[in-house]
Parts: sequence; C-alpha cells; structure tokens
Amino acid sequence: MRPIITLITDYGTVDGYVGELKGALLSSAPDAELVDVTHDIPPQDLERARLTVARVWRRFPAGSIHLVVVDPGVGSARAALAVASDGRFLVGADNGVLSPALLVPGARVVALTVPVGVSATFHGRDVFAPAAAALARGEPLESLGVEARFPVIRRTPEPIRRADGAVEGEVIVIDHFGNAVTNLISLRGGTIEVGSTMVPVRRTYAEANLGQPVAVVGSTGFIEIAVREGHAADVLQLSRGTRVVLHTS
Amino acid sequence: MRPIITLITDYGTVDGYVGELKGALLSSAPDAELVDVTHDIPPQDLERARLTVARVWRRFPAGSIHLVVVDPGVGSARAALAVASDGRFLVGADNGVLSPALLVPGARVVALTVPVGVSATFHGRDVFAPAAAALARGEPLESLGVEARFPVIRRTPEPIRRADGAVEGEVIVIDHFGNAVTNLISLRGGTIEVGSTMVPVRRTYAEANLGQPVAVVGSTGFIEIAVREGHAADVLQLSRGTRVVLHTS
Amino acid sequence: MRPIITLITDYGTVDGYVGELKGALLSSAPDAELVDVTHDIPPQDLERARLTVARVWRRFPAGSIHLVVVDPGVGSARAALAVASDGRFLVGADNGVLSPALLVPGARVVALTVPVGVSATFHGRDVFAPAAAALARGEPLESLGVEARFPVIRRTPEPIRRADGAVEGEVIVIDHFGNAVTNLISLRGGTIEVGSTMVPVRRTYAEANLGQPVAVVGSTGFIEIAVREGHAADVLQLSRGTRVVLHTS
Repeated sequence: MRPIITLITDYGTVDGYVGELKGALLSSAPDAELVDVTHDIPPQDLERARLTVARVWRRFPAGSIHLVVVDPGVGSARAALAVASDGRFLVGADNGVLSPALLVPGARVVALTVPVGVSATFHGRDVFAPAAAALARGEPLESLGVEARFPVIRRTPEPIRRADGAVEGEVIVIDHFGNAVTNLISLRGGTIEVGSTMVPVRRTYAEANLGQPVAVVGSTGFIEIAVREGHAADVLQLSRGTRVVLHTS
Repeated sequence: MRPIITLITDYGTVDGYVGELKGALLSSAPDAELVDVTHDIPPQDLERARLTVARVWRRFPAGSIHLVVVDPGVGSARAALAVASDGRFLVGADNGVLSPALLVPGARVVALTVPVGVSATFHGRDVFAPAAAALARGEPLESLGVEARFPVIRRTPEPIRRADGAVEGEVIVIDHFGNAVTNLISLRGGTIEVGSTMVPVRRTYAEANLGQPVAVVGSTGFIEIAVREGHAADVLQLSRGTRVVLHTS
Repeated sequence: MRPIITLITDYGTVDGYVGELKGALLSSAPDAELVDVTHDIPPQDLERARLTVARVWRRFPAGSIHLVVVDPGVGSARAALAVASDGRFLVGADNGVLSPALLVPGARVVALTVPVGVSATFHGRDVFAPAAAALARGEPLESLGVEARFPVIRRTPEPIRRADGAVEGEVIVIDHFGNAVTNLISLRGGTIEVGSTMVPVRRTYAEANLGQPVAVVGSTGFIEIAVREGHAADVLQLSRGTRVVLHTS
C-alpha cells in the first residue's frame, strides 16, 4: 500500500506554495499518495486548524501521515513537531494544532531538527514536508529529532453547569453551511437558548420547517445550531464565542 | 488499474468534512484513487450539482465511481441511491443530482440500505462513502439495496419555439468566468436577444473585440453568452433564469 | 513510477471544467498521477499564472508534466505549446505562462497540432489535456507538433538602480496572506520605502512586533513586505505595480 500523506494548510492554492509542498513531498517520497484535506484554513487560524485536525486525523487508515501547516510563528523559536499517535503520524508547528493527537495516551512527539540554511519563511516546504516524506519512507519518528516534553496543547473550552442545571457553552466554529458548532453535549434533547431565541434539539435538520432554526447533535457529538436550508450564523447572528445555554429540564 | 472515485460536494474543504469522506473511502477501499472534481457547489444547490455531474460523469473511464454529496434533505425520508449507467457508477441522494445518468436507457438504480445508528446529519461519510467504497471493491450494485423504481429526475428546462420562429430560452447557469450558459441550441449562427442587447453567435470568443459581448456554442452544445476577457453576467446583468431569445432568420 | 501530471488552471472547480480535464487525462493516460496545484488563478491572469508556474515547475521530480490552462485567447490564432525543459514537461497556450521553463537553456518547444473538429472554447480538454496525456504515455515531444521558434516570453520587470544607489522596484504579486512580493533582491538587509513608510528588511516575520510591517527575503529570493500576523496589502495599501525602493546604505 502506498503511504498516505494528507495536507491541511492555510496556504490557499493560488500562489503555488501548496504546489511547492507537493513537489517537495513527491521528490523525496515518490511513492506517497497525497490527499488534500484543505488549503482553506483562514490564514493563521490555529483554532480552526485544530478542529479540522480533530475531525479527520483518525478517519484515515493506520500509517497515514497528516501534514498540518498553519504556522504564524514561522521563523521564531517555536519548535516543529512530529507526532506518532494511535497508529497515525502528524507533522506541524508546536502551536497547538496537533493537540487532538497529542492528547491521546501513548502519543510520542519529537522536536524536528531544523536543517541549516533553510528558508526562514517557508518551513512548510523545507522542514515539515521533508519530515512527512521521511515518515512516508518508513524512517522512525525518533530519527527526526529529540523528544519534545511539553508541546503546546489547545483544547475546546469546557461548558459550565449552572446551579439551576442549565449548561452554559459557546459557539466554537461556524461551518461552511453557516451551522454553529457548540461545545455542548446532550443525550436527551433539550432546548438551546441563544440570545432571545429558544432552539429545540432534534434528531435531524429535516425535523424543522424550512427557514426555521433547529439544533442537532452533529457528527462529532457536539450540538450544532442550524437553520433548515438556511445559514444559521447569519439568521441568528452567531459567531465564534457566542454564548449558548442548554436547558434540558 | 486502481478504481477511480470522484468527489462532487457542496462541503467546502475548511471544516474537514471532505477529509472525513476521504478517510472513510480510503479506510474501506484502500486501493481507490480519489479524484476531486469540486467541493465548491454552492450549499444545497441541486441544479448546479446536476449540471456539474452532467459535464463530467461520462468523461471518466468506464468503471469510475462518482460520489455526489449535495443533500439538503439529509436525515429526512429521501432515499439514498446508487446507480450503474453506461459503465460508470454514481452514488448520491434521491434529489435529482444523478439525473444525467438516470436518464440513460439501461440505467440500474438501487435505494441504499442505511445502516442502523449512523449519524443523522452526515450521510456523506456514513452512507454514501461506504457505498462508493463497496463499488470500488467490486461489490455488485444490487448488493447495496433494493431496486428504486421512481427516482427523482431533474431536467434542463426546454426552450420554446415561438410562432415567429424565434426560440425563447433562459440562462441555466453563470459559470466561473461569468459566462451565461443557456438552454439554447443553434447549428447555424443567429443572434441572441437579451434585454435590449443583441448578441451575435460566433464560433469563438476571439471573434469579439475586447469587452464586447459574444455568444458561442459551448463545449456541451448549448449557447453561452460571454464578454471577451470580461464578465458577461456582470456586464449584461444576467443570472440564472434570465430570459434569452434566439433569432436565426 | 506513475507519471505525474500537475494542473494549474483558472477554471475554478464548481462548473466541472476541471473534472472534464481530469476525466480526459485519466481516459487517455490511465496510469497518470494527477496533482492539483491550483484552479484558483484569477480568470485570465497570465502574470499570476506565470509566477505560480515559476514557483512549482522545478520542485516536481524529473519527468513530471505540468498542464497550465490560463488562456484568454482560446479559439484565436495563438499557438498551443508543449515544452521540454530541465527534465520536466509543460503544456499550455503560447501567451507567456510557460516562460519560466522556456528561458532555461536547452528548452525544446513545439506548437501542438490542433485536431480538426475540437471545441473552439475548451482547448484545455481537447488540445492541452491530450498532449499532456501523450507525454505521460511516453510519446516524444516532437511527435506532438512542429518546433515553435519564437514563443511568447513574459518576464518579471527588472528593478532600476538609481544614481544615489537606491534600487527602484515594484510589487509583482499580493499573495494569499496579503504579503507583497516585490522584484527587489537584497543580500545585506536594508530598508524598503513604500509610500511614506520605511520597512526594515529582517530575516523572519517573527522579528517584527505583532501588527508591524517587516520585509523579508522570501523563498524565491525576492523581498516580500509583510505585516506580522496581519495583511500587509490592506495595511499599507499595496497592490500589483506599487512602487517600492530599497535603500541599503
């Protein structure tokens, strides 16, 4: 089986930076199978990158390598990491984007040795891609650098249970459809309070009327607020950080 | 030869939904060759999805599998389909997006058996991708579900011939370049009336002066209205449904 | 090793034009490995296409084929080219987008024979893709057409050294991050004058404070003007062609 290398970047594609990454990968791991996950992470948006990594990294077969290049600190003293976790590998900057894999017990992580003389502005091509290619060629993680003991961890904020039993959370991301993914979890329905609107938790979007708001448990287990065949974030004026409250009684 | 699976979705790439699709496909059909057609169908735009399917599905080699995920009715009672037509396979919701293949004589179509307990919001990953992967592994269409007798069909609207010989049609899509693709056909030139502008039908865009409107027979046989090195939809205020009239005398 | 065909277009993906290209490629070169570089070149922007080609074409392994489809003159008398240069191949219109490879000594270039009866509006699918597929199947360059003696060449404008030792250049492209890539080169620091702002040349973005402008030598050797974790083009009102001056004394 050809080794899979997925790409998650904030590069866009127009400038050819992604092309350079791919050229570097295929030049040093000719056997690799490149899989675009996204190049549309908003520039330098670590939180969005982390959430996308969280969604996809374990969906790929064991042995897959995820190359994650969202790196506002390129050229600074921040470390570059390679991680082995649950049978997959990840390569990226030490800024929290790899947290979903780092938080799994047994994860191993090394700080990449940065070659002398590489571009100070393009570690994606000159540091991360070579490390991903080395992993694709079967080189062991530990050959890429020394153990990193305290990598940066980013986490989804925890919701807060109030004295009255309601749970206060927040919107963690607005997705491509305008749905607001929250940090709330519910196993038994309830109602989401958002501003002055009360949104019922249903099983599917299709249980709402067209244009009406509805909350569902999304595919990651978190409650999402949607508007059937509409754009919830626009209709309900939601954005990252908007406060939401789950009432289940 | 590795089995080809193409992807046509309205997911965008940023959230990682497409990444999850690809991970699911490669996990259960490791041999598959994934080909991105587009993830930029406007959210839930069945008509645009249908037109893109129409353009591409027969361009790929026999045996190719097209995974089409544009599905505003996810979680409702709408069926999920797999189709075998003209040597290719297609998988998608029963909402008309697969019509170009369904309309070919001899097409076979089954309603997919939806596994119990799958996400009610992410049939792309949990229903359509597994079916596409099964086809890629060589499983027969009929093993995926029972025959679907009356799938939803969507069609390009037919133009109307008037008593005076002119033909009334409409703009069916504005493309990425701002060209307006119509439902008009002409074998012998003519003039397109759009609002108060008369646009000549030529063989190539290059027969117009820079910035001037021109109509040509596009690569699907329909007449397209363009502005040479410009954006026809902006210049001529065209949008989907704009009425256009072909005069050939 | 499977032959690599990269794609650089201004097609966007939504209409399915790229899908048709890919289908045509895989139908006549089933063994090819397709690599998306970009489909987001702004429509008909030859300069942007040329710069992206410049970045990527030599990053891919020897034998790779670059299919470049940015072609405002489709259907006119402009030639269609195939190029062999430094072990790679390129296919595209004779409008300067292939210049980076044409300028390498020893480059060979042929004008493609255009088959009779092909679409006058879709040479990407009907002329360029078949040529790229033929090269992927190992057919010799010279079998595709006759030598082209004077292909169109586009170049990055040269900066001008002033009597006072300063060097006048310009912004040649604004990248996805809002960084302004100039045509200036510096081996020993200096200061960039842009409007009324003086921007120091540093080694990395990280040497500026958040929100402050900084110039660095980018990965292609040209000086780029950035704003740390910001959008330099917006902050400093830069666009393609903006005049910039390098002071090194």
